[in-house]
Amino acid sequence: MRGKLALIAGGGALPLSVAARCEAEGRPVFVVRLAGFADPHLAHYPGIDAGMAEIGRILSAMKKADCKAVCLAGLVNRPDFRTLKPDFKGATLLPGIIKAATQGDDALLRKILSVFEAEGFTVEGADDILGGETLPAGALGAVQPTAEQLFDLKKALHVAEKSGELDIGQGAVVCDGLVLAVEAQEGTDAMLVRVAGLPADLRGSPGDRKGVLAKAPKPIQDLRVDMPVIGARTVELAAAAGLAGIGGVAGRLIVIDRPAIIEAADRLGLYVWGETSGETA
Amino acid sequence: MRGKLALIAGGGALPLSVAARCEAEGRPVFVVRLAGFADPHLAHYPGIDAGMAEIGRILSAMKKADCKAVCLAGLVNRPDFRTLKPDFKGATLLPGIIKAATQGDDALLRKILSVFEAEGFTVEGADDILGGETLPAGALGAVQPTAEQLFDLKKALHVAEKSGELDIGQGAVVCDGLVLAVEAQEGTDAMLVRVAGLPADLRGSPGDRKGVLAKAPKPIQDLRVDMPVIGARTVELAAAAGLAGIGGVAGRLIVIDRPAIIEAADRLGLYVWGETSGETA
Repeated sequence: MRGKLALIAGGGALPLSVAARCEAEGRPVFVVRLAGFADPHLAHYPGIDAGMAEIGRILSAMKKADCKAVCLAGLVNRPDFRTLKPDFKGATLLPGIIKAATQGDDALLRKILSVFEAEGFTVEGADDILGGETLPAGALGAVQPTAEQLFDLKKALHVAEKSGELDIGQGAVVCDGLVLAVEAQEGTDAMLVRVAGLPADLRGSPGDRKGVLAKAPKPIQDLRVDMPVIGARTVELAAAAGLAGIGGVAGRLIVIDRPAIIEAADRLGLYVWGETSGETA
Repeated sequence: MRGKLALIAGGGALPLSVAARCEAEGRPVFVVRLAGFADPHLAHYPGIDAGMAEIGRILSAMKKADCKAVCLAGLVNRPDFRTLKPDFKGATLLPGIIKAATQGDDALLRKILSVFEAEGFTVEGADDILGGETLPAGALGAVQPTAEQLFDLKKALHVAEKSGELDIGQGAVVCDGLVLAVEAQEGTDAMLVRVAGLPADLRGSPGDRKGVLAKAPKPIQDLRVDMPVIGARTVELAAAAGLAGIGGVAGRLIVIDRPAIIEAADRLGLYVWGETSGETA
């Protein structure tokens, strides 16, 4: 049994999955609910509400609660550093954090992780904690992609990986060889809604599905914090955009609630495919 | 005086600018208004309405009108090739065009140009015809970018160029070093509207402008057909998204109605900057 976990919770479903998994395993968890981001349901767990710049207060609370490890999970919008209200510890760390932030999301994350590591906490990835809940190789549900669809998938994964190298984001949609959309700060859900609004000639439809959403981790990204995620809602939105499927790199995409994903994919007729790493280049 | 021009007109403002320039110069122009795309105001000029797959009819009309040159200008959504209604000539050319289309927008354009060249027409770029109406080096209006803003601009141009190399699109928005959005099939206007809808923490505002839209041609793109374009509306939408400015590579971005762009930029407090080619890598 690993020691008590401090979960620093941003937005979205990932922190809920991490906390639920700890609870199911009987592992004690202490949730730092980042104000403005964390899902209100997380108030179910012991923890505190904290502003993201109250670093001293967060570290003290984690130590007082006897946490041994820390997991950062969930979406956090990049703050306006000029309007943050840091506590004393936060104020001493802020210049270094701002400097890292100018180098991109990835540098910012690594800087924040180093702060927790310097205080003696072990950093654990959401993927570790959700053990095994990553995309397997091959088809996840009943629908198999065609060879033609795999062609779109490989291109979408390539674009997602390249866009990751540029620190843009993790996702892309390709249909008939054409890049329909690239995800940046709007997130995957908003990108899929946008694809659904593109001219019908460019994309598929529920009656004639084509195209694919691919998500890939940034090559330079710390997988312990920010591995890409799909859930049943991703499948629903991809279906509404007329896509034929969703793809990722096997082992490098977190699937939240695998049975729900399979149910949605089978019901809507979408494939969910895990590409073997190395095949996309 | 160059010979009579056939203008194959897609959507947007570029074909109107090209036609107006020909008229101002006294150069005869014959407009092929692509059904569903061309601006209705183009009916002011001699020409025909045609479906995009009626290639034989378009070529005949161009020859009958004694055109010597052809210019393809304006946005055309990629068609659903299965629902096109080609004429006889179109049907013979369609397999090669579909094959090119699977290789991306750029291959598709080059294929279509080659069809006109094979029929003896000289291909002219909208930028040539609009002579000199490309972005100059340095500031176009009264507002100068700060050194910090140029940092964002160089990053945005880099992302736009890289995204062009991947045949994704021509534009990107960067704010405080962070890539807020990348343009694919939705187009620049829709991307700017999306940026305006991002959380306020991530972007600037009319009272505190920051961030930049950059547009760069795809490195593999045929500049005669599809050079990136900005107009006064681009400035208005960039302003509404809280951006501090717009940038491009000098000589490689068409400015439609330069006085209107300068008026909007000066009124709204945005810079418009032409980077000297080669500085962005």
